[in-house]
Amino acid sequence: MKAAVKALEAKAKAAKAASHRLAFLSTEVKNKALQNISQDLIARKDEILAANRIDYKTAKALGMSAAMLDRLMLNPSRLEAMSQDVLAVAALPDPVGEVFEMRTLPNGLQLGKKRVPIGVIGAIYESRPNVTIDISVLCLKSGNAVILRGGKEAIKSNSALVKVVQDAATKAGMPEGAVQFIENTDRTLVPRLLKMGNYIDLVVPRGGADLIKFVTENACMPVVSGGIGVCHMYVDKSADIKKAVAIAYNAKVQRPTVCNALDCVLVHADIAERCLPAIAAEWAKAGVEIRCDKRALAILKKMSSVKLVAATNKDWGKEFLALIAAVKVVDSLDEALAHIERYGSGHSEAIITEEYQAAMRFLNEVDAACVYVNASTRFTDGGQFGLGAEVGISTQKLHARGPMGLKELTTYKWIIFGSGQVRP
Amino acid sequence: MKAAVKALEAKAKAAKAASHRLAFLSTEVKNKALQNISQDLIARKDEILAANRIDYKTAKALGMSAAMLDRLMLNPSRLEAMSQDVLAVAALPDPVGEVFEMRTLPNGLQLGKKRVPIGVIGAIYESRPNVTIDISVLCLKSGNAVILRGGKEAIKSNSALVKVVQDAATKAGMPEGAVQFIENTDRTLVPRLLKMGNYIDLVVPRGGADLIKFVTENACMPVVSGGIGVCHMYVDKSADIKKAVAIAYNAKVQRPTVCNALDCVLVHADIAERCLPAIAAEWAKAGVEIRCDKRALAILKKMSSVKLVAATNKDWGKEFLALIAAVKVVDSLDEALAHIERYGSGHSEAIITEEYQAAMRFLNEVDAACVYVNASTRFTDGGQFGLGAEVGISTQKLHARGPMGLKELTTYKWIIFGSGQVRP
Repeated sequence: MKAAVKALEAKAKAAKAASHRLAFLSTEVKNKALQNISQDLIARKDEILAANRIDYKTAKALGMSAAMLDRLMLNPSRLEAMSQDVLAVAALPDPVGEVFEMRTLPNGLQLGKKRVPIGVIGAIYESRPNVTIDISVLCLKSGNAVILRGGKEAIKSNSALVKVVQDAATKAGMPEGAVQFIENTDRTLVPRLLKMGNYIDLVVPRGGADLIKFVTENACMPVVSGGIGVCHMYVDKSADIKKAVAIAYNAKVQRPTVCNALDCVLVHADIAERCLPAIAAEWAKAGVEIRCDKRALAILKKMSSVKLVAATNKDWGKEFLALIAAVKVVDSLDEALAHIERYGSGHSEAIITEEYQAAMRFLNEVDAACVYVNASTRFTDGGQFGLGAEVGISTQKLHARGPMGLKELTTYKWIIFGSGQVRP
Repeated sequence: MKAAVKALEAKAKAAKAASHRLAFLSTEVKNKALQNISQDLIARKDEILAANRIDYKTAKALGMSAAMLDRLMLNPSRLEAMSQDVLAVAALPDPVGEVFEMRTLPNGLQLGKKRVPIGVIGAIYESRPNVTIDISVLCLKSGNAVILRGGKEAIKSNSALVKVVQDAATKAGMPEGAVQFIENTDRTLVPRLLKMGNYIDLVVPRGGADLIKFVTENACMPVVSGGIGVCHMYVDKSADIKKAVAIAYNAKVQRPTVCNALDCVLVHADIAERCLPAIAAEWAKAGVEIRCDKRALAILKKMSSVKLVAATNKDWGKEFLALIAAVKVVDSLDEALAHIERYGSGHSEAIITEEYQAAMRFLNEVDAACVYVNASTRFTDGGQFGLGAEVGISTQKLHARGPMGLKELTTYKWIIFGSGQVRP
């Protein structure tokens, strides 16, 4: 244990040392590193896929579910997609060095803010191996060093991917130590890592609620946490029912296991009789179970093809992560807003409406990272938002909110150009 | 105790409720509230000064130092200055509602960020009563509710000031409960307050190192901390000695008890013989004690009027908060940068130089909230930076760095305008 903690500390220290050089790398060198990574994900696919096959076999033997096995699995086309995603990040503007809010004071001092990397990012995540590439690439492009601690299930895959990243980055002239990987999957090392505030400037946990809770409670350095999404869709009385049905289906069914998937539909009473059966019929095609309040149940109970359950209090504010949705009939936009304020997790909330006033009130009054009018909550994603990829989705209010891309991995410092000024 | 915690929780709850309405107030109402506060600080000066006299007498009887008594004391001219400062904040642009980084995606989704208040700010501070006004006014203008917990010494003064603020704000149409004041000075209530993460979105401690450490370690909600400044000034070999002397004097002497006061001067060996005696002679007029490394001591020891002490290791990285400065001769800019990296607290650092290249390297490479060329570190201040006032000075990297004004009391949410888009 003592040796393992020492090894961990050595990695953190090396990352810190590398971060001082990373902060001053030219955009050219950083982009070259990303281009190398993109190429080598293809060129070295055999070793990556061989490592992934070991993880896959081990996980299967241990009885991992088909859905989880699918998340774990890599194949040539997935590597090709990862390789393309890296190029997309390379093509984004470099956030580092931007000078903004520059002004000249009456005493002649010129001052403003300059965007700089945060330093060393610790990423603690689960399962999907592509997260290793996403996070590494975003950190390198934004001039940060990174310490990766992935899940046990993907240890061989992540290890192979990190080797590719490290070699490709060094070849481009990046400092050694910029990307650190923790091979030791001993869980008792995580709390030790979370105490290394001398070396790690920010920790981003990416995974289930337990992981996030553990990291938030144990980290001595700042944490940007998120990933828990209790997402609502409010169907206003003026809604276009076609849009409501399409969005409800997409947001619930397209990928039910992720944080931006829909959990609860609130329907205005004036439109519920027409809208709810249409949504339920569409959902039924995918086998969605509907947990209904009394009024929704009264409307839907005639539909034989639909899985209906009477909702209990526990169903409000619940992140289902499955083909289950809660449905409630409300009498007004105000009632919907109050429900969302009480039960939402501040992740993604949507209104379906054709009324300008209702749209604007919803946008203004809902306090969440992402607030939608007439669109699926599934868009809450760094790639979809044009950020290239994401390190995570923040549901906290400080520093970053929603998908965290390159800019959210930076901070600023004030720079002040004087000519001998003293304070009167 | 139980009743006191309940009373505290009621205040926090009331602040949260008020914050929902504060977020939507027009700039007009907010500015009207600030104008009322400005007027009433003068109109109600008798009751404020009477309360302050009680605090002053109590503190004096308890043996408070003259310097601290001076910080505590209010008089008509200080109230006039406070009243003017409030108008300065009223004149600043309202940060709330700004929409930025708006773009249209290929699928037609229009998305961007909208600036919104953080919610409820908890402020825990010591001594100076004007902080009560500064923080209240910044929070109200930025649409946040605030819970104030000032020092015991200023309890009557703060209580009187808060009454003025509350009355003036309500008169302008602000919701009741927007400004909460904790009259109970029982210290055991502070940790209880720091656990009320349901109601308080951000805590800002403003005071000495012990207070900041306690808050950082005990708060369950995000904290923006700072206020500890180990500030360096590096005199480059190309420095204009006149500027160096004037800035060293200003930064050390003008107000030695604050965080942006100078602590350590690093002088390039090539200029030390000419520059150090000039700085020391100027400092001697104010009785500054100089803690010298060997080389600085060798240069200064002939000066009879100067208080010289051989520096020990403890003098590097020390925040003196008094008329004491550490001085060290270095052989290069690199040595100065390494010293600052090792001993700085990330607050304010300055270089005195006439060489472009040295100035730019210092600005780029020093990792601190505020980095100066040829100016006094004493400028690190919300008022001086044109922010109107400050809630505190952050030395952390996340969310806000340096003086925290109106903008730093806001966050953003993503707003997304769709027309039925679903994720492919």
